[in-house]
Amino acid sequence: MWESEGVTAAADRPVLLDRPVCILGLGLIGGSLLRALHDDGGTAYGYNRSPDTVDAATSSGYQASGDLVATLQRAATDDAVIVLATPVTTIDALLPTIAEHAATCLLTDVISVKQAVAQSVSKHAAGMRYVGGHPMAGTSRSGWEATDPHLFSDAMWMVTTEDDTDADDWSTVASIARAVGAFVVPAAPDAHDRAVAAISHLPHLTAGATAAVGAGESDLALRLAAGSFRDGTRVAATAPALQRAMLEANGIALLNVLSETIDRLIAARDELRDQGTVEILVDDGHRARLAYDAIAGAAPAPITGVTIGAPGWAEELRRQAHQARVWLG
Amino acid sequence: MWESEGVTAAADRPVLLDRPVCILGLGLIGGSLLRALHDDGGTAYGYNRSPDTVDAATSSGYQASGDLVATLQRAATDDAVIVLATPVTTIDALLPTIAEHAATCLLTDVISVKQAVAQSVSKHAAGMRYVGGHPMAGTSRSGWEATDPHLFSDAMWMVTTEDDTDADDWSTVASIARAVGAFVVPAAPDAHDRAVAAISHLPHLTAGATAAVGAGESDLALRLAAGSFRDGTRVAATAPALQRAMLEANGIALLNVLSETIDRLIAARDELRDQGTVEILVDDGHRARLAYDAIAGAAPAPITGVTIGAPGWAEELRRQAHQARVWLG
Repeated sequence: MWESEGVTAAADRPVLLDRPVCILGLGLIGGSLLRALHDDGGTAYGYNRSPDTVDAATSSGYQASGDLVATLQRAATDDAVIVLATPVTTIDALLPTIAEHAATCLLTDVISVKQAVAQSVSKHAAGMRYVGGHPMAGTSRSGWEATDPHLFSDAMWMVTTEDDTDADDWSTVASIARAVGAFVVPAAPDAHDRAVAAISHLPHLTAGATAAVGAGESDLALRLAAGSFRDGTRVAATAPALQRAMLEANGIALLNVLSETIDRLIAARDELRDQGTVEILVDDGHRARLAYDAIAGAAPAPITGVTIGAPGWAEELRRQAHQARVWLG
Repeated sequence: MWESEGVTAAADRPVLLDRPVCILGLGLIGGSLLRALHDDGGTAYGYNRSPDTVDAATSSGYQASGDLVATLQRAATDDAVIVLATPVTTIDALLPTIAEHAATCLLTDVISVKQAVAQSVSKHAAGMRYVGGHPMAGTSRSGWEATDPHLFSDAMWMVTTEDDTDADDWSTVASIARAVGAFVVPAAPDAHDRAVAAISHLPHLTAGATAAVGAGESDLALRLAAGSFRDGTRVAATAPALQRAMLEANGIALLNVLSETIDRLIAARDELRDQGTVEILVDDGHRARLAYDAIAGAAPAPITGVTIGAPGWAEELRRQAHQARVWLG
């Protein structure tokens, strides 16, 4: 899949994960993680509030339960890593129960913002060990029926990397990502939140605006719509509640990039009105897309020369990740 | 490919085209048209300014020439339909030569704006018969090497339909579209230009802005970028000169939809800043995308009850096309 030589694809490098994993929430991300870990021979089990999802998962051969407390008690007994995979809006209510029944477990998550989750953990599960995570994978569909055990193959999985992050806990969370075929991208929570505001959350708003303007024009317009509209508006099809939970939890970073986007579009409108050209925006956009293609189209360069836990390890991981390098474990 | 029952796919309905077709410009669209017509057994030949393109086309077994006058003289002798398939910025220079050497031919085009082309034809090839066309197909790549004889299969092909359009000429242009597997969408030039501003030209600007903001954030951001960024910025990869030629030729209609987009994004920013929510834009975008999916995901309903040339035929075609129906010939 990569255009240039480089590291072996992540999916080709199975990583043995010797810890059980307990996943809370079996939607697209949590359910796909359960399937990927289980299918690879790992011990993984999950909780979901909806009996339909639990039935669907268990009838497919996966371990799933609708009993949160029993699931957490099992995790505490197993010393499982607990993965929060529910919408960000639900975690304040979940965390006290987790802390009550599984306080000694290592906690991670797959939620698309990191500062807000870290604050919630500090407040509602104080004292628990926590290393945040965020796999950059998804589709516009949601729920168990959309799950895919290969969803994370060659995906980027951000793992929170701060100067006071515990090295063993970091390695454990990174190994979950590696076990399901993802590349690990170390980052600080604030840098992550700014990055995903720009490349994940903002595209939902530009897609939404583009879709709304197109549909507002006429059915003739929608009939004529082809690739540029289809691709440019795809993520607007995501369930609105999921989009809002994701975007609103990253409000400050999103405000910044949304304002920059508005400024660029206003400048383009003025240039078009006054000089009949859209040169600046088209050229900037083209250059930016080529920069993305250069990074996304090549095998990721590996982070090298770092021993997890050695002095300055976290800072060095972040420094190399800022050059678009990934941790291969 | 269609989710519901309905008309047979256009590609399954070969239409015999008994007229030669002369294509001026063998880039992505013109070259694909040459290949599609030729591969289907039709008589088609083309002109291109670049010797490399002519060599590439002829060495693949297609009839292509770098001699514009000789090509036009052949078209005049053949009574070929001439298809303008060069960038809109070049046609003012080409049209007088066409009018000089092939004045009796029927002229059409595959350019993405219709009012500007019609004005150029009136001015620089006055008296020639002309019916505009615009196939809604393409990729972000360009040139002969990107051509694909199946590019138009099941695509929408707009054909200019005005009250004074000649019925025989209209049928001839429509039959070219049908011969290469496209559906015919009748429309007036101004309605077409407004529609493509919304669903084809605007997405280039929102993609450009989204790409520029993402790349401006950090290489970490581009490393984390996944499907929403990749799809949402795809068309920004199109050659800038092609994007500018297309967008700037439709400036007035584009200004309108760009202004509406800016207004929607500003309203979303204010809502996010003041109330912490992006509900309105996310909901509007979601509803719009579902409306698009409903139209694009079903087999197009056919225009019925119209005899081309009967009183009111053009008006009735446009009326039904505004309900997202297509002409099947």
